[in-house]
Amino acid sequence: MAPSWTHLIRFIAEEDGQIHYGNIDAKKYPDVGLSILNREKVGAQLIQGSAFDGSTTNKILHVATLLSPIGTEEVPIVRCMGLNYRDHAREANMPIPDVPVLFIKPRTTINGPYPAKINVPKIAQDGSSDYEAELSFILSKSGRDIPESEAMDYVLGYTCSNDVSARTQQFKNSQWCFSKGFDGSCPLGPVLVSPCAIPDPHKLQIQAIHNEQVVQDSNTGEMIFTIAQIISFLSQGTTLERGTVIMTGTGPGIGAMRDPKIVLKHEDDMRVKIENIGTLVNKVYYE
Amino acid sequence: MAPSWTHLIRFIAEEDGQIHYGNIDAKKYPDVGLSILNREKVGAQLIQGSAFDGSTTNKILHVATLLSPIGTEEVPIVRCMGLNYRDHAREANMPIPDVPVLFIKPRTTINGPYPAKINVPKIAQDGSSDYEAELSFILSKSGRDIPESEAMDYVLGYTCSNDVSARTQQFKNSQWCFSKGFDGSCPLGPVLVSPCAIPDPHKLQIQAIHNEQVVQDSNTGEMIFTIAQIISFLSQGTTLERGTVIMTGTGPGIGAMRDPKIVLKHEDDMRVKIENIGTLVNKVYYE
Repeated sequence: MAPSWTHLIRFIAEEDGQIHYGNIDAKKYPDVGLSILNREKVGAQLIQGSAFDGSTTNKILHVATLLSPIGTEEVPIVRCMGLNYRDHAREANMPIPDVPVLFIKPRTTINGPYPAKINVPKIAQDGSSDYEAELSFILSKSGRDIPESEAMDYVLGYTCSNDVSARTQQFKNSQWCFSKGFDGSCPLGPVLVSPCAIPDPHKLQIQAIHNEQVVQDSNTGEMIFTIAQIISFLSQGTTLERGTVIMTGTGPGIGAMRDPKIVLKHEDDMRVKIENIGTLVNKVYYE
Repeated sequence: MAPSWTHLIRFIAEEDGQIHYGNIDAKKYPDVGLSILNREKVGAQLIQGSAFDGSTTNKILHVATLLSPIGTEEVPIVRCMGLNYRDHAREANMPIPDVPVLFIKPRTTINGPYPAKINVPKIAQDGSSDYEAELSFILSKSGRDIPESEAMDYVLGYTCSNDVSARTQQFKNSQWCFSKGFDGSCPLGPVLVSPCAIPDPHKLQIQAIHNEQVVQDSNTGEMIFTIAQIISFLSQGTTLERGTVIMTGTGPGIGAMRDPKIVLKHEDDMRVKIENIGTLVNKVYYE
């Protein structure tokens, strides 16, 4: 049974202090991340069951705290695309890759939207903490050797995400799993939008906004490998488990490649905004 | 409570067809992987509880099938060291890395010892399927920011493993997570040896044996970063979850760097043998 929600959030309710799934009326709250930041009272239609097979009910609960749309315990792993935007490859002066570039973030990187913070551990407090605005999607079911023609059936929904990176560590190491794998380095959310509400995921404006300045501004149409191609490629000989988060890569304008550079500093305001999906807001916290 | 076993196996018992943990008498069965291959009747002392806090009982069950010493459902992730042997860095003509090189295999790579097979999917059947004999260990508890002086308290036990790799895919991609991430590409086992039975994990001969030919022959003393250094480094800003498998890197003699090259072919016999631990045997299967 397909889920009956279109705009799913996971949240702690004012009414009972418990974690629930809810469906948001996108006409009333077109950008729930900003609504919460602006202290609007946001009502969500309670979802019975899980994100994967939940159905909406008529009961309304109100958001006390927004969480990531999927919990760490439901995510086996985060699979990430490196260098998947044409305009970012041009900026980085890198050739367009022949095949999708996969690296992995552990599930312990999953982080929520505001009020959750981007945590910068000691080792990344060397002027190299950086953002990457990315469209992410979550897999609705497990699969292996998935043909491109069936790949889109595996998409549960789309959301905003930030591939927080420690550039000093990244650039001194051939592999990126350490520098992009710190606890909470994958803020995700707040809303998971069903494919039925996103007719074309490759026609969405995507921005990173750092302290109110737009620092990345691209379009998901710049992706080198499409979502269907990514799913099909990655599933070769490999079971992609239900609940897997897949990050689709970032556009130009990352902090390390700007002149002057931008570094995430303590108490900075960092946002990822994607058209028809919403805004992921986080403050930065140097632990 | 520390576990009371010294040589743990996970197995399907002849008596009831169920999965159990057992403790092996290492004097009677010094290499349980070879014992099973030679169709010896192997008795194991039943362990009550889990690998993490199990205690041995007096009940003996007999091995019908050996499994990996930890099940996929207990492994959050496999963290792997690249280029961590001095003699392999020399062979590859690569500089000694300044920091541990981390890449990640998903838990779906976990595979058992014989009779489980190394599965080679279509994409890796291009003359590039390769072995890497590695010492692995499993974390007994979760931790973050672990000082080197406490790191060894996190080791549940040591076992043999094979970092099966698809070289064509590896060499055309900057990141290794795809080419080393196929289902079953981390054969593990068969015995998990407690640290109390391995006084120095950096003084163990480690070999890969391909069709009865020794093709890798090194010593864990060649590791660039020690086990304590690996744990401490990786835990910076990062929660290492209980049950994590950590692969410590491989020595010289991998198939791709030999002249003539060695490629894993259908029905090949592939073994990883580590002193005082045992032998991990697998046949190769082209799906």
